[in-house]
Amino acid sequence: MATPADLLQPIVAGTPPAQRRAIAKAITLLESTRADHRAQGDELLTALLPHTGNSLRLGISGVPGVGKSTFIESLGVHLIERGHRVAVLAIDPSSTVSGGSILGDKTRMERLSTLERAYIRPSPSSGTLGGVAEKTREAMLVCEAAGYDVVLIETVGVGQSETAVSGMSDMFVLLQLPNAGDDLQAIKKGVMELADLVVINKADIDPAAATRARAQIQSALRLFGFHGNPERSAHAPGVAHGHGDVHEPAPTRWQPRVLQISGLKGEGLDAFWHAVTEFKAMQTANGRLAERRRQQSLAWMWERIDAGLKTAFRQHAGVRDALPATTQAVADGQLPPSTAARRLLDMAGLGPRT
Amino acid sequence: MATPADLLQPIVAGTPPAQRRAIAKAITLLESTRADHRAQGDELLTALLPHTGNSLRLGISGVPGVGKSTFIESLGVHLIERGHRVAVLAIDPSSTVSGGSILGDKTRMERLSTLERAYIRPSPSSGTLGGVAEKTREAMLVCEAAGYDVVLIETVGVGQSETAVSGMSDMFVLLQLPNAGDDLQAIKKGVMELADLVVINKADIDPAAATRARAQIQSALRLFGFHGNPERSAHAPGVAHGHGDVHEPAPTRWQPRVLQISGLKGEGLDAFWHAVTEFKAMQTANGRLAERRRQQSLAWMWERIDAGLKTAFRQHAGVRDALPATTQAVADGQLPPSTAARRLLDMAGLGPRT
Repeated sequence: MATPADLLQPIVAGTPPAQRRAIAKAITLLESTRADHRAQGDELLTALLPHTGNSLRLGISGVPGVGKSTFIESLGVHLIERGHRVAVLAIDPSSTVSGGSILGDKTRMERLSTLERAYIRPSPSSGTLGGVAEKTREAMLVCEAAGYDVVLIETVGVGQSETAVSGMSDMFVLLQLPNAGDDLQAIKKGVMELADLVVINKADIDPAAATRARAQIQSALRLFGFHGNPERSAHAPGVAHGHGDVHEPAPTRWQPRVLQISGLKGEGLDAFWHAVTEFKAMQTANGRLAERRRQQSLAWMWERIDAGLKTAFRQHAGVRDALPATTQAVADGQLPPSTAARRLLDMAGLGPRT
Repeated sequence: MATPADLLQPIVAGTPPAQRRAIAKAITLLESTRADHRAQGDELLTALLPHTGNSLRLGISGVPGVGKSTFIESLGVHLIERGHRVAVLAIDPSSTVSGGSILGDKTRMERLSTLERAYIRPSPSSGTLGGVAEKTREAMLVCEAAGYDVVLIETVGVGQSETAVSGMSDMFVLLQLPNAGDDLQAIKKGVMELADLVVINKADIDPAAATRARAQIQSALRLFGFHGNPERSAHAPGVAHGHGDVHEPAPTRWQPRVLQISGLKGEGLDAFWHAVTEFKAMQTANGRLAERRRQQSLAWMWERIDAGLKTAFRQHAGVRDALPATTQAVADGQLPPSTAARRLLDMAGLGPRT
């Protein structure tokens, strides 16, 4: 396997064919679970880090059937025609079960995948959601170091992977169908709350339904503006400034919006990208983009620590031996759960020091 | 402090004055953080365990102002008049910040607190939410061993404490005001999803609004019935059996319902308790009550293990020394978060074995 020294220069300063190979090798190295590869991967990542951070990280989610792939392909081609370099990554925890993966079928993005200025990588297909998310985050850093200035991170429509993508993107976009009730589903799953921009796709199929959906989603976003995200509540429309329209942004802070597009016909992409650049400009000026990345990095570190602690605990020889009988005794009501927890922690040498 | 041997008999077989003192001493012992007390507490809990499990555990939540205390007091008096013994516990994570607590002001339940067959304990007022929840769970076991056959667990209207209460109750009741939009708040916070029974309190103030609220909440519950809780979806109304009315329960599985009451006037308490007993009978017959408790015990054990692992990690001398600089480097973008996590885990001797 390639060493960090072999890969750094081709990634940071290479040109497409050699650079593309180096990116693929780096991601493969980072996805390896061998301890020596992991150490080399850490070395490479640390060396790449000063070259990262210059892309716009765009999370894109929505339920299956909403038209994510078509939208991403149209957007990617649109951006490349305007001089951008676009990387497309994915988080699909279901791929660890089925072995399949969103983006696994590259023919889904036929036009985009032939362009030299596009890089498409399917979801890692093994490990927990946390592990899959970590590999995608690291792949994102590699792409940024290679000069891709737009990273699109696709996810399937299940609540946890949406949270993972939101936790690594600068802006989180939720694609919705023009159906009544789709917004309630998104609220219920906690995804609406994460959205910086909601895009009603396939709006051309039923314009009246799309307009109704837009009004409903605007109400929902207003709800979160007032009560949900404390980031947003200070300048919520109708509260601090007396605005009643979500479309009129507060002076210095982004207010989530709703747009209508047709991903298939490519209609609405200009308006979409205009909103994205406006978001970036505003959040850069008010310092929130930098603060969001800072918080994301810390959350990522702690998420990985928690996962590592659990793994180490379960691999402890004494715990591994005692766990089945202890679990059974707790399930059967013979041992109080808190007592069982303390015993197992003591066994692992991790009991409380009080 | 009293020893487990001193407390077991008075709790399990004592009569009110002595029993009440023993319960209070046992809960104080369980709330102590001293290692020797903790060991005695575990011994006591394990001895009490065979005498527990015979109560109905009823979680009661709702935003401040919904009238929880008045409802709990009316219900408690109502049940005691019918021969029950009622314990009232609370989880209020805000009490760890303010020092205050729901139920801290016992005059709020003046009538109930004077009754010999009632036991009221305010929320533990220190520790994390997990710690507060653990102490409340343990207090619940003590009350059960003492023969209280109804345990009411109150919580304030914030999402995490609701989840904690739902995780220790047989039935989770959500109190709502007859206001449009109150249901959306509950959906948003993920609380509606947990509800086995929604009670519109103060329904007498504006009957028309209460009727509208009821229809809205029924739609929301139907939404979760179809798509939310897999426990419920198999027999969701309109799907498996062609029922269109949430009020018509599936033959063997509970369907969440909506009731209207006036806690202040004591109106609707009979209908409420009828629904509760119907729930208990159905969930006992189909085995779901026992399975829910089994799952709750296992989840509780793992929650406590996770909390213990984090505490042990943060208390590790090497980690404690390295954490500030490492955190800073991650926040400043000089160290990849996943690399930082691996370094800290290695330092604590908990790195991956691959």
